[in-house]
Amino acid sequence: MKKINLVLFFLAALVAFVVNAQPPRPAPTPNDTLNSTKVLKDGRVMFSIYAPKASQVTLSGDFLKEYKPIQLVKNDIGVWSYTSDAVTPDVYSYDFVVDGVKTLDPKNVLLKEGENGYSNYFEVSGPESAYASIQNVPHGNLQKVWFFSKVTGKMTRFHVYTPPGYEKMKGKLPVLYLQHGGGDNDASWSTVGRANFIMDNLYAARKAVPMIVVMPMGHPGAGFFMNPGIDEDPYYKQMFDEIMPLVAEKFRALTDRYHTAYAGLSMGGLQAMNMALFSPQRFGYVLPLSTGYFPPQIKLLEEKYADALRNPEINKLKLFWICMGGQKDIAYQNGLNCNALFDKFGIKYEKANYDAGHTFITWRHNLEEFAPKLFK
Amino acid sequence: MKKINLVLFFLAALVAFVVNAQPPRPAPTPNDTLNSTKVLKDGRVMFSIYAPKASQVTLSGDFLKEYKPIQLVKNDIGVWSYTSDAVTPDVYSYDFVVDGVKTLDPKNVLLKEGENGYSNYFEVSGPESAYASIQNVPHGNLQKVWFFSKVTGKMTRFHVYTPPGYEKMKGKLPVLYLQHGGGDNDASWSTVGRANFIMDNLYAARKAVPMIVVMPMGHPGAGFFMNPGIDEDPYYKQMFDEIMPLVAEKFRALTDRYHTAYAGLSMGGLQAMNMALFSPQRFGYVLPLSTGYFPPQIKLLEEKYADALRNPEINKLKLFWICMGGQKDIAYQNGLNCNALFDKFGIKYEKANYDAGHTFITWRHNLEEFAPKLFK
Repeated sequence: MKKINLVLFFLAALVAFVVNAQPPRPAPTPNDTLNSTKVLKDGRVMFSIYAPKASQVTLSGDFLKEYKPIQLVKNDIGVWSYTSDAVTPDVYSYDFVVDGVKTLDPKNVLLKEGENGYSNYFEVSGPESAYASIQNVPHGNLQKVWFFSKVTGKMTRFHVYTPPGYEKMKGKLPVLYLQHGGGDNDASWSTVGRANFIMDNLYAARKAVPMIVVMPMGHPGAGFFMNPGIDEDPYYKQMFDEIMPLVAEKFRALTDRYHTAYAGLSMGGLQAMNMALFSPQRFGYVLPLSTGYFPPQIKLLEEKYADALRNPEINKLKLFWICMGGQKDIAYQNGLNCNALFDKFGIKYEKANYDAGHTFITWRHNLEEFAPKLFK
Repeated sequence: MKKINLVLFFLAALVAFVVNAQPPRPAPTPNDTLNSTKVLKDGRVMFSIYAPKASQVTLSGDFLKEYKPIQLVKNDIGVWSYTSDAVTPDVYSYDFVVDGVKTLDPKNVLLKEGENGYSNYFEVSGPESAYASIQNVPHGNLQKVWFFSKVTGKMTRFHVYTPPGYEKMKGKLPVLYLQHGGGDNDASWSTVGRANFIMDNLYAARKAVPMIVVMPMGHPGAGFFMNPGIDEDPYYKQMFDEIMPLVAEKFRALTDRYHTAYAGLSMGGLQAMNMALFSPQRFGYVLPLSTGYFPPQIKLLEEKYADALRNPEINKLKLFWICMGGQKDIAYQNGLNCNALFDKFGIKYEKANYDAGHTFITWRHNLEEFAPKLFK
């Protein structure tokens, strides 16, 4: 039932009540009281969607051990269900597909906005998910900053998180640029990525220093760029010429190298790699997550950009932290290939891992792990 | 197709390409290139959704002249369509219902978050919609502010818009509290309500003075309160004891009566009425939109709260602006009843109207009309 109609219905029902007429009530359905993601006592999750006329419903999500969609089973009142294995308390995303049409869960308002649409997500509460939960601790603010980009000729935006107490702080703060992946957009790190709550919780535990977190849009051009270098993709020009100056103008941001960090995942991780190799003098910390150049790009890098790989500025990074999502991370082999190339050219980096594949489960835990390493 | 799978697919396709294997491509469908809200040259809008196995698809929305849902018609490739009458350029919300299940438009990322779920919205471009469009003008920032409410014992949040250039301004600014209706939440005014862009455009045209706009959550309690008085509903205690002090703490906000305005729509309009009648000394401007007490509440007001109605502070409001959405506004009669009661008690107010019913079309235009009247 649509939102405005809820209000209309409510008011109409009251008006009707007042004049003693019969209110026009929609017929009750099993959907009215359906809990679409019910966490059972043993930690399994029962997914349900009411679709009495559908002939097939599937479900996919990052809580599944494999990436292939699950078939749901319909009961005699038109509710399709699937019960997962037990899951660790955390935040998970999922999608229903009803008769071939992707259908957002009508019973869940938690959405992850992406470049091409939305997915739902839900939280399983427990000690393991506390790192990313909305807790009763001081909260920073999350802002959307809109601006006109001369680079692309279009309106665009980025998200900015300022730490708790920012308004009353004296002086300037370091900045972490936190980049999403190819299917996502600048809203993803603060929805399913929970970056703001993860930072709030780290500060409350005195594990991270106050910093501004800027979450840009990763697709200013029309394409999905992945080549080494910072000339083809308008992303870098927009970042250096527009976003970084705007952050300095609108926020009390430190702008020197050792107060600037750059982390990105998947496609954003390739952007991070490019920052480390082609603009290392701008950053003190670069953290590529679940990424690595593809074999043709590795070849291109070595053939065309060998001089860049020998730039001594790269090894002046305080931290070059390459983190993968384990062997089921689809970028795993590309990551290993990159490491081998970096070894060959004497580039120093730290290796890390969180074994939850190419998913936001991995990347949230990455943020929790690396944010305490910054600006100390 | 889910977001993570898009990335997976893309990367998998590339890996497959590299190793000369056949990439696993999903079969193409009419959905791949579907434009779900296509504005035709004559101003009509064609709505489409791909649902080949569905047996019924309906559409509702505030672009329709009546509130009842429209039946879509299926073509031979499984696409259901409906073409509306010509619509004035503006922002419109809509919902698809597929076989009885509300289904967000899988081809549109523009969503309105509400108290009970989401609706889609889209913009028809043209001179008439320029007031609410994202234009190349200086933009203010939109923030989400999370806090722990002692009143309810829960985490909650509000949205805040600060005007363009706020960071560089000297001194404090007046505050407009802008309240959503019963089916919506604190995100509604900055999604389908476009409040931030309307304010940006007003400033750019020098029609409004710089102000901070605070958009609180209207349902801190469990219910949908509508009685006169500010004691039953925890909303008022949260507003006065928590939100207003937090705004003063986190923003450079003026807090005196004549630099504080309160506007609300529908249920939020009842909250505005209560502010005007039961706490007029806190506000210089009160603007109830598309609202009015129901007959039993009017009776209660007159019997129990006659003293409040005679409070001389009410007529010290610089502006008490009661605006309705015309005769098809479902609150129209309630609004007239309220006016009659106010007349009886000598309460002064201004009447206004925007004839688009009980919809956000009305309320966006209301904001555009009243914001220039504030703090001058």
